[in-house]
Amino acid sequence: MHIQISRKEEERKKKIKKKVGKYGEHSWATAVAWEAGKPLVIEEVEVAPPQAMEVRLKILFTSLCHTDVYFWEAKGQTPVFPRIFGHEAGGIVESIGEGVTDLAPGDHVLPVFTGECKECAHCKSEESNMCSLLRINTDRGVMINDGESRFSINGKPIYHFVGTSTFSEYTVVHVGCVAKINPEAPLDKVCVLSCGISTGLGATLNVAKPPKGSTVAVFGLGAVGLAAAEGARIAGASRIIGIDVNPKRFNEAKKFGVNEFVNPKDYDKPVQEVLAEMTDGGVDRSIECTGNIGAMISAFECVHDGWGVAVLVGVPNKDAVFQTHPLNLLNERTLKGTFFGNYKPRSDLPSVVEKYMSKELELEKFITHEVPFSEINKAFDYMLQGDSLRCIIRMDA
Amino acid sequence: MHIQISRKEEERKKKIKKKVGKYGEHSWATAVAWEAGKPLVIEEVEVAPPQAMEVRLKILFTSLCHTDVYFWEAKGQTPVFPRIFGHEAGGIVESIGEGVTDLAPGDHVLPVFTGECKECAHCKSEESNMCSLLRINTDRGVMINDGESRFSINGKPIYHFVGTSTFSEYTVVHVGCVAKINPEAPLDKVCVLSCGISTGLGATLNVAKPPKGSTVAVFGLGAVGLAAAEGARIAGASRIIGIDVNPKRFNEAKKFGVNEFVNPKDYDKPVQEVLAEMTDGGVDRSIECTGNIGAMISAFECVHDGWGVAVLVGVPNKDAVFQTHPLNLLNERTLKGTFFGNYKPRSDLPSVVEKYMSKELELEKFITHEVPFSEINKAFDYMLQGDSLRCIIRMDA
Ligand SMILES: NC(=O)c1ccc[n+]([C@@H]2O[C@H](COP(=O)([O-])OP(=O)(O)OC[C@H]3O[C@@H](n4cnc5c(N)ncnc54)[C@H](O)[C@@H]3O)[C@@H](O)[C@H]2O)c1
Ligand SMILES: NC(=O)c1ccc[n+]([C@@H]2O[C@H](COP(=O)([O-])OP(=O)(O)OC[C@H]3O[C@@H](n4cnc5c(N)ncnc54)[C@H](O)[C@@H]3O)[C@@H](O)[C@H]2O)c1
Ligand SMILES: [Zn+2]
Ligand SMILES: [Zn+2]
Ligand SMILES: [Zn+2]
Ligand SMILES: [Zn+2]
Repeated sequence: MHIQISRKEEERKKKIKKKVGKYGEHSWATAVAWEAGKPLVIEEVEVAPPQAMEVRLKILFTSLCHTDVYFWEAKGQTPVFPRIFGHEAGGIVESIGEGVTDLAPGDHVLPVFTGECKECAHCKSEESNMCSLLRINTDRGVMINDGESRFSINGKPIYHFVGTSTFSEYTVVHVGCVAKINPEAPLDKVCVLSCGISTGLGATLNVAKPPKGSTVAVFGLGAVGLAAAEGARIAGASRIIGIDVNPKRFNEAKKFGVNEFVNPKDYDKPVQEVLAEMTDGGVDRSIECTGNIGAMISAFECVHDGWGVAVLVGVPNKDAVFQTHPLNLLNERTLKGTFFGNYKPRSDLPSVVEKYMSKELELEKFITHEVPFSEINKAFDYMLQGDSLRCIIRMDA
Repeated sequence: MHIQISRKEEERKKKIKKKVGKYGEHSWATAVAWEAGKPLVIEEVEVAPPQAMEVRLKILFTSLCHTDVYFWEAKGQTPVFPRIFGHEAGGIVESIGEGVTDLAPGDHVLPVFTGECKECAHCKSEESNMCSLLRINTDRGVMINDGESRFSINGKPIYHFVGTSTFSEYTVVHVGCVAKINPEAPLDKVCVLSCGISTGLGATLNVAKPPKGSTVAVFGLGAVGLAAAEGARIAGASRIIGIDVNPKRFNEAKKFGVNEFVNPKDYDKPVQEVLAEMTDGGVDRSIECTGNIGAMISAFECVHDGWGVAVLVGVPNKDAVFQTHPLNLLNERTLKGTFFGNYKPRSDLPSVVEKYMSKELELEKFITHEVPFSEINKAFDYMLQGDSLRCIIRMDA
């Protein structure tokens, strides 16, 4: 079960061996987070072969998302260390475990932090993508097959993160968390579809579904919000209003079709009132991509009565409470939330990749930085400084 | 512009004149609420001819709804008295005002407390029925054309209620609040479609839209909730779970397809948890028909993650606050509210009448009582004692 590119691979490995030291047969360069908030360290890590219903992937490109940073900082969560972060990536199947029939070595794939077993009630429902078996679990650092990690250094386990751990040359992933995509698709671009970009895009295209010519409000102009705006542009919305408390975001947002801006800090009344005045009663659709509970309430209350739909995407604090007067609902507003843009990873991601291939979806504008794997900590710096949307990390460099 | 049935009418009028005294050319028997909470008094009331875009209706049957009782009791609202209540009715167009082209004398109609002007943004939207011009207004006691009442006694105005005031032999209604229906339809049955029954039915059929074979929870087993259950039965739901704090409701509910019952008072945990246990994680759809804020929250939180849809129908207290953890939304639950079951009165009610004509919709089981107009106060008693679902008031008796 060796991959086809194994000769080139051997050469590359030699090169890395020279750089990093002696590697065993199943040992590869991996960025290990030894402690919360401390820079990652590139280590030689043993990556065990895939077990039943698992595949081992060679990661070619990975990118950094806020969720990695959040669990790396581990403020207010149970810390799971040492751990290998990373959940946005593009790679190639290297080997497959028992029972895997959907994937073969050489397949081009995107690993995903949430899965699709195709057998549970959620996977069988047309509406849900919240697979019971493979739903995201940020506390678990092991594989579900045997409750063990596939990563180790001198026999000591290094823990997984959301079942993907893509900050590694090789990783082991459950087959249900792997989307097989068009092998023509450039992995250094489509790797960003593993998480945030698909989340925002799907929130608009699959959940908010703005009619052509409609007015869409996007709260929060980070990568997820800009992807939601990109969805609104693709759907043919005529007004896309960006709302952010950070005015720096506005310039970049123009590239994503955002044609009006509101900074809630510029007004002494609730932003939902400002939006209602701008739009003769409210927007047709709103998508909240901040994680801030106040923004969630505003995003709901700013939609037009009769037909407005608000979609929540941001992940809130544990103790946040959504509050509104029930009349806001009775006046025929709809409130929904989405997880990963309602995309089923295996069934739906291939078609999102095709949207990029057909130039309907523009991914280049999300990619603001690129670093070699050896400089992965720079990607953290760019994100923490608020400079980057997505920083691509090249594994072969 | 006299109606075709005018000869019979003259005879009837003579009969009433004998009973009630001397009637003028445009004077008819009307049940006037002189004061909040005091029995209605049948009076001879002058009903002015219809003005532009208005029609004068001869009411044949009317029924009593909680909303009449609520505004008659006038607790905590601005009282508008003397007033003519009534908003569920079936009648015949007697005469039409200037500009009315859609209706002609003799048409069989249902007056409705909310309208459809066919010109505003709501009427033009496929999704909304919240007409900007003719949306329900419980404070207004006059017609919008001239800001005056069409009812008077010795020149002193008697006020309208929600634009319908059907507790009167004749009433004047805006053409936008009148649904023209199949003249074959028995008005003593379909009159109940003017308000509560359509509200509950539409909440299920138009908003919750339960798939065939699904599990539906109905909170509150009054007329509205039972109509929601009737909608679930028509949609082919396989489990219809009725939730009510009044166990007396359960027996009657069986006729409406409710096949399981939960009384929240029988448990010492939130009813949403009871329902989740009964249904392996939650119901597919829930419809709240209580007006109680706690029931609204339970109705939302009891739907299954991934695909559950909750629909709020009940009218809450002014100071009620809907509260939930936003994760309940992010886990792909949908929360909606509806007004008059999302039916557009003029466009959609005729087809609801046809559902009755084709025996798909059963209305007889909602009609528990019948009284002659002269005994209209009995209808109030039945409702206040919780004995009736709908009491039909026969105007000609
Ligand atoms: N549901 C999912 O599947 C999923 C997946 C990925 C990310 N997310 C969530 O989406 C959210 C956005 O992610 P991101 O990577 O774009 O984050 P980001 O931090 O880059 O962007 C958030 C933006 O929101 C703005 N903001 C914060 N509070 C605001 C307020 N009150 N009003 C207006 N703007 C405000 C910030 O200034 C920032 O520009 C996060 O909560 C993240 O956890 C959800
Ligand atoms: N949105 C609309 O267009 C519209 C139209 C008509 C009526 N309504 C509203 O619908 C609601 C129901 O109307 P109805 O005529 O059927 O009223 P009803 O009083 O006959 O029925 C309400 C039922 O809810 C039950 N109930 C009360 N609190 C409860 C709780 N916490 N949990 C479970 N059950 C509870 C009561 O015991 C009662 O049986 C009312 O709030 C009414 O104002 C709305
Ligand atoms: Zn599944
Ligand atoms: Zn992510
Ligand atoms: Zn209108
Ligand atoms: Zn009513």
